[in-house]
Amino acid sequence: MPNISYVDGVYQNYENSKININDRGYHFGDSVYEVILFNKGIFYDFEEHISRLFTSLNSINIKFSLSRISLKIIIKNLIKINRVSFGSVYIQVSRGIAERNHSYKGMNIKPLLSIIVTKKLNNIGNDTIGVKAITLDDNRWSRPDIKTTQLLPNVLAKTEANIKGAFEGIFIDSDGYVTEGSSSNIWIINNNNEIITRPIDGQILSGITRKTIAQFAKLNKLIVKEEKFKKQELYKSKEVFLTSASSFVTPIIEIDNIEINEGKIGQTSIDLRNLYFRNSRNNL
Amino acid sequence: MPNISYVDGVYQNYENSKININDRGYHFGDSVYEVILFNKGIFYDFEEHISRLFTSLNSINIKFSLSRISLKIIIKNLIKINRVSFGSVYIQVSRGIAERNHSYKGMNIKPLLSIIVTKKLNNIGNDTIGVKAITLDDNRWSRPDIKTTQLLPNVLAKTEANIKGAFEGIFIDSDGYVTEGSSSNIWIINNNNEIITRPIDGQILSGITRKTIAQFAKLNKLIVKEEKFKKQELYKSKEVFLTSASSFVTPIIEIDNIEINEGKIGQTSIDLRNLYFRNSRNNL
Repeated sequence: MPNISYVDGVYQNYENSKININDRGYHFGDSVYEVILFNKGIFYDFEEHISRLFTSLNSINIKFSLSRISLKIIIKNLIKINRVSFGSVYIQVSRGIAERNHSYKGMNIKPLLSIIVTKKLNNIGNDTIGVKAITLDDNRWSRPDIKTTQLLPNVLAKTEANIKGAFEGIFIDSDGYVTEGSSSNIWIINNNNEIITRPIDGQILSGITRKTIAQFAKLNKLIVKEEKFKKQELYKSKEVFLTSASSFVTPIIEIDNIEINEGKIGQTSIDLRNLYFRNSRNNL
Repeated sequence: MPNISYVDGVYQNYENSKININDRGYHFGDSVYEVILFNKGIFYDFEEHISRLFTSLNSINIKFSLSRISLKIIIKNLIKINRVSFGSVYIQVSRGIAERNHSYKGMNIKPLLSIIVTKKLNNIGNDTIGVKAITLDDNRWSRPDIKTTQLLPNVLAKTEANIKGAFEGIFIDSDGYVTEGSSSNIWIINNNNEIITRPIDGQILSGITRKTIAQFAKLNKLIVKEEKFKKQELYKSKEVFLTSASSFVTPIIEIDNIEINEGKIGQTSIDLRNLYFRNSRNNL
């Protein structure tokens, strides 16, 4: 297992990898993050994740001075040091360290970068597994489109799902529409074989895997629509699947104890998953 | 200035007071907190704050095994070590340290307690200062009644207020009603001299200072009502004030550039503030 992480300029063992007690990420969740997957020298959607990190930083006005190039060098270096072949890299940037005060006006503090490498156990290309999901009221703050560490609602949703024997919790907005999963985007395929996912309307994260899958699907003559859909439509869909950086394309075969596609993995979900692995990569 | 803090069983210098990079408080805001004020051997509402901390822990299912008594001893000891006469103590408990995973199902981890003492510069009893406020849409998650570190909306609100020359940002719900301030409860006094604050309806924190002030006011034959009120009523109120552990009772004399009580501090606000200092205390 990997044991070197990076915190504020220093590569060190996990046990010694610490952040100051006055870090605003710890006190306020005043930080943003990304998770990027890699496998045998290949990064999945590396540039897009780095771009989104900078977009998130900008959205909450964190002045991060490290260049994209330097950041990428640090990430790649950390993976090499850890000698991990298949895994994910977690990148977090907090606003920095300061005596606790809600307001950051006039604070001249340096954002803190921390990076953790995690080894993944399963290899890509193994049999696709279908998962169960539950639905829950979307009770997050108004900016789930920014990838911040305001994740307690997601934590509680995922835990509730797990306790109920499901893999994912799917958020439903106050009008009954699906927003997204606790750590994924949600897709349905209807009886006309149209692949549908919610548009980027400020109520969901602009998923990188989501975008990539949509592109690949269109290139392969599949019909992709960005439309809101209700919880009831989920239950009646031909196929349902989720996308995320760490789960790729994962079929959902049961929601709220209702079987989707008679509990079987749909062929289009499998096709999209294979398309993803064949096409989405940047060299490490 | 105080320089000793407490982290996970150890009293140490601030610079060395650190949290592991895998703490769930850092990754997810999966933690709760309290701030308690003290002055010359007196704690303000100590027992109530400790009780609320345990209520918060329970609300998000953090299994904290430290007893109330032990926690109180640690806090008091830390204040003595720091030789601070007037200040606040910040107490945070996170779910603990674990490899990053949204779900905490089945995780057998130990919650992490950290405590920081901060010296306050102004002494209680100085002239009461009236402050300005702005209003903003309440965009927090659905559980602001739990005192968690999901505080980025509060951070952004307070910062926006400060940038506009105001002290506090007041959240307005989607129906136009005042919920609470970014770090305070909000009160109005109408032309019938009724003192009004929003009831504990799940949309606001059950403020300790709020509760204490309501009790003192009633004991002094003032009329206190727990009712929702709209933003427009704020502007037209005879007096407006906020309450919080660190601001006590603080008059608000201008909101969204509209003067309250012609920009003057109201007498009832001053009376309540004085009542608070005279009556609210536990021995250190």
